[in-house]
Amino acid sequence: MNVLLVYAHPEPRSLNGALREYAVHRLEQAGHNVEVSDLYAMQWNPVLAPGDNLAWPAGVRFEASVSSRQALENGTQSADITREQEKLRWADAVIFQFPLWWFSMPAILKGWVERVYAYGFAYGVGEHSDTHWGDRYGEGTLAGKRAMLVVTTGGWAPHYAPRGINGPIDDILFPIQHGILFYPGFDVVPPHVIYRTSKVGEAEFEQACAALGKRLDDLWTTPSIPFRKQNAGAYVIPELTLRPELAAGESGFHIHLDQSW
Amino acid sequence: MNVLLVYAHPEPRSLNGALREYAVHRLEQAGHNVEVSDLYAMQWNPVLAPGDNLAWPAGVRFEASVSSRQALENGTQSADITREQEKLRWADAVIFQFPLWWFSMPAILKGWVERVYAYGFAYGVGEHSDTHWGDRYGEGTLAGKRAMLVVTTGGWAPHYAPRGINGPIDDILFPIQHGILFYPGFDVVPPHVIYRTSKVGEAEFEQACAALGKRLDDLWTTPSIPFRKQNAGAYVIPELTLRPELAAGESGFHIHLDQSW
Repeated sequence: MNVLLVYAHPEPRSLNGALREYAVHRLEQAGHNVEVSDLYAMQWNPVLAPGDNLAWPAGVRFEASVSSRQALENGTQSADITREQEKLRWADAVIFQFPLWWFSMPAILKGWVERVYAYGFAYGVGEHSDTHWGDRYGEGTLAGKRAMLVVTTGGWAPHYAPRGINGPIDDILFPIQHGILFYPGFDVVPPHVIYRTSKVGEAEFEQACAALGKRLDDLWTTPSIPFRKQNAGAYVIPELTLRPELAAGESGFHIHLDQSW
Repeated sequence: MNVLLVYAHPEPRSLNGALREYAVHRLEQAGHNVEVSDLYAMQWNPVLAPGDNLAWPAGVRFEASVSSRQALENGTQSADITREQEKLRWADAVIFQFPLWWFSMPAILKGWVERVYAYGFAYGVGEHSDTHWGDRYGEGTLAGKRAMLVVTTGGWAPHYAPRGINGPIDDILFPIQHGILFYPGFDVVPPHVIYRTSKVGEAEFEQACAALGKRLDDLWTTPSIPFRKQNAGAYVIPELTLRPELAAGESGFHIHLDQSW
């Protein structure tokens, strides 16, 4: 299979750098083709701007969605954007590896999403009707591919527990896993999170590699998070609220998972 | 009072640009001193890197927290970082205005947080003991200041309702409001969100200005979100899990608000 690893960390001689090396090796040993987008090493430009569309006329009021749509349709995207889209199309699975900075992904990776996720590629896909509100949340360009987050954090696991002060890790990652990955069609497998990174010594690193290796071996068979598909009947269109009889009386991120799975 | 507006949008001739102008005018008319950090206009560099510490030795393994701590202590921070920290110290209130891109802030603003929020400034502040786990979540450098998000989104309000498909807007913004603003000490007032921006015509724009103006007039008196302070007895230290008798049996972001207020 083809695996794309999108990696965001400034220091190769770090825990993240070592885990990245390990992951690539493990995947290649299993016979997969691996491509790495090492955003710091690539000096990825994370700032969405008019220059992303080489044909955007100077002086014209910039609208990001109009500009990215035209650039995608007319082949006038900045070459770095097209390359990343091609990698995504090539991949059967995509791993996003990053340190959790301020409870989200590093800016360099957020800007990768913003620039690569063009209108017509990751959003603005498919028709809108009374029963179908665009190809999104379970449908779209990246449908049929798998995605997984590999996240490190300095904080302790209990700080991210269901009653931990930072909020539950699954809720912190929901805007990414549901809003960035499931949205354009990915099947998202549960994240692999490594806590309290400052305490990772040699023994802990071996354990971390073994745990990550298992997740990579199981990447194709691990059940994905059962996010509800937008156009399969669970939502009222166009309000896109969950039908009252589902998770009746409840609210919050967790109602968008089909717990009957 | 002194108000800092941290603003992230690539096009001044946009709804965001117009609202920004309106906000500055309204605040100045009320007698406040206003400073704007217009990140796109400043060509803000959002990529946290060794160069943020002018004295970080070439070739030495980069550790972000160590580097930013040393740079803050020794006065070797990149000048753009120091300037933004000075604006934060000067401000009595900070408004963060941005379009919601992929369910979070634009990368250029996320990178402002990552670089400006140095160790010793926004984290790594205060002592750790059995009863006090650092000055954070309600204490810290920015305690006594107010913060408010002004957010625009193309999506409809019901899509962000308690049962909307994107998730409740308060939960989407929790990692920012709790994790980025309350963490270093801000009192956070409820966000001002403008939905379905593509449908904002002249009449809607006037309404949007009136609504925003009211929020700005009330900035000093609006009750802040009652996030629980970390070191005031609600959390078990060092696990930092909410004491079992508070919001008993519940979990999720909302338990970190003291609903008895």
